[in-house]
Amino acid sequence: MSNPVKEFNEYRAKMNDKILADNNKIIKRIFNLDTNAFQEGALDIKTKELLGLVASAVLRCDDCIKYHLESSKKVGLKKEEVMEALSIATLVGGTIVIPHLRSAFEFWEALEANN
Amino acid sequence: MSNPVKEFNEYRAKMNDKILADNNKIIKRIFNLDTNAFQEGALDIKTKELLGLVASAVLRCDDCIKYHLESSKKVGLKKEEVMEALSIATLVGGTIVIPHLRSAFEFWEALEANN
Amino acid sequence: MSNPVKEFNEYRAKMNDKILADNNKIIKRIFNLDTNAFQEGALDIKTKELLGLVASAVLRCDDCIKYHLESSKKVGLKKEEVMEALSIATLVGGTIVIPHLRSAFEFWEALEANN
Amino acid sequence: MSNPVKEFNEYRAKMNDKILADNNKIIKRIFNLDTNAFQEGALDIKTKELLGLVASAVLRCDDCIKYHLESSKKVGLKKEEVMEALSIATLVGGTIVIPHLRSAFEFWEALEANN
Amino acid sequence: MSNPVKEFNEYRAKMNDKILADNNKIIKRIFNLDTNAFQEGALDIKTKELLGLVASAVLRCDDCIKYHLESSKKVGLKKEEVMEALSIATLVGGTIVIPHLRSAFEFWEALEANN
Amino acid sequence: MSNPVKEFNEYRAKMNDKILADNNKIIKRIFNLDTNAFQEGALDIKTKELLGLVASAVLRCDDCIKYHLESSKKVGLKKEEVMEALSIATLVGGTIVIPHLRSAFEFWEALEANN
Repeated sequence: MSNPVKEFNEYRAKMNDKILADNNKIIKRIFNLDTNAFQEGALDIKTKELLGLVASAVLRCDDCIKYHLESSKKVGLKKEEVMEALSIATLVGGTIVIPHLRSAFEFWEALEANN
Repeated sequence: MSNPVKEFNEYRAKMNDKILADNNKIIKRIFNLDTNAFQEGALDIKTKELLGLVASAVLRCDDCIKYHLESSKKVGLKKEEVMEALSIATLVGGTIVIPHLRSAFEFWEALEANN
Repeated sequence: MSNPVKEFNEYRAKMNDKILADNNKIIKRIFNLDTNAFQEGALDIKTKELLGLVASAVLRCDDCIKYHLESSKKVGLKKEEVMEALSIATLVGGTIVIPHLRSAFEFWEALEANN
Repeated sequence: MSNPVKEFNEYRAKMNDKILADNNKIIKRIFNLDTNAFQEGALDIKTKELLGLVASAVLRCDDCIKYHLESSKKVGLKKEEVMEALSIATLVGGTIVIPHLRSAFEFWEALEANN
Repeated sequence: MSNPVKEFNEYRAKMNDKILADNNKIIKRIFNLDTNAFQEGALDIKTKELLGLVASAVLRCDDCIKYHLESSKKVGLKKEEVMEALSIATLVGGTIVIPHLRSAFEFWEALEANN
Repeated sequence: MSNPVKEFNEYRAKMNDKILADNNKIIKRIFNLDTNAFQEGALDIKTKELLGLVASAVLRCDDCIKYHLESSKKVGLKKEEVMEALSIATLVGGTIVIPHLRSAFEFWEALEANN
């Protein structure tokens, strides 16, 4: 049976490895920044994950949404918190965000099924 | 044999049901507004569908394009009217709209085949 | 007293002349297409202006909005038709369209004052 | 002496009044939703303001950024929390967000000067 | 065995033929301009392909990226040149470009395998 | 007499200093990357400046366009090379890029007048 979470993570990991092996300094540093930016700071990790999620949603990047949904779940955010964040994204970004809301709901279900 | 129109509508309906069942007030109202905005008013329904289609096309939202193509067909818009609207979208939005034009043409064919 | 419509048109005309005098073939042809695309065809001129307006609004291009507001007024579109088109743009494009709605209202007032 | 905060708010209030007086139902409801979406819910008000700020920043809407900076200050967010949110926006949205970062810093200073 | 390059080109060619057969003048001229714009001029063909690639990447259009990757390879651009261009796109456009970077790497591999 | 190049650079420098003084690590590193990305590498400096310019143009960031126009001039790019790059941006990004083309032409004139 297919597992969308596993497939997403495996493809992502495989391609990230290839990109990083390619040794482009700018890209490597951007990847590195991406890890650092979501560490605890003046804002806690949960808030930062929600910020990453909303940024991804209004910019309509499905893979980025999936990534932040998974991280959100890992740091203990609840479904209703995540959905409230996505509701703000849909209001600010408009109804064109709705298709991404559909795939976000589907991926969240897969994350819950994976536990 | 696969039917892209049916598949699109079934997935859309299934996920919309789940999203609405989740009971987030902001999202429910946005869904509600989406229905109201395309009702007859100062502008007729055909014009409004074309406006929704062009907005979807320049924002490059394939699912939104499909949705408005189907509604456009239902309210009696002809292929050449729809294509003229899409030509304006391609000019205003640039050649990055062209891949969406390809999938729009394909979906329109599927809509015609479904009749 | 300042006249926003006149100022907009004068700057636009002055810079367009310079751009066209520069003789870049691609740019000249795009300018040319822009004139042709809004001519009567399968769709009438009023509908096409509204399509151009909505595309400009969801892409949040103030100058493009102003241009299509002026053309919309010239071809006889009424305020409530224009506002209904802009309401669809705001729904599809989200609340980030609202600042452009404000400047669109202001420019429409200037267009009416200019009559 | 000019006061950017006062000017921004006065223009915003004046034009919002005109837009709402125009009585377009869709637009009125979107304005209404915009107020509701940032009320306390599963997420607290501070988190929601930061979500609105980041959405505005990655979508590069200066007026939306200003609005959420002012609300952020009102609900008690500190400069370093706001800046950390904006740093995530700059990373996710890229260096094209930097000009908006500049005007955000300038507006934050004006907000502090206004106290 | 599946060949992503062949599949991409066949679908693209098939749909382009249908679009052009539809005889919409604006769309036909935009397709025509797209061919002309990448011919040698003040800038050489390699530079132009990289410009098309970066524009496609920051606008996050996977099909446009694939098209320019294939053309880039045909005109003799090396992998490290292409990746350096994509690193600028990722910096300017932000981390939301990263998923497109992954599919770009994958398609480049397919192009190399096709030789 | 006003000097748009000087004003742009002074405001930019003043605000960049304030942002960097604020000591947010993520933002500081992004600023740093921005300097590194446009150094000579597999691609020469001229090509990279044109890539930065086209990315800025299709993403419709006037300040970013101005910055890359000035750098383009400094590294010896000629007007016709710059305009050819901008013509590709206008084709790929659509007619909504045209207002930015107007301000780009105006700023280029100011750069030439400053010599």
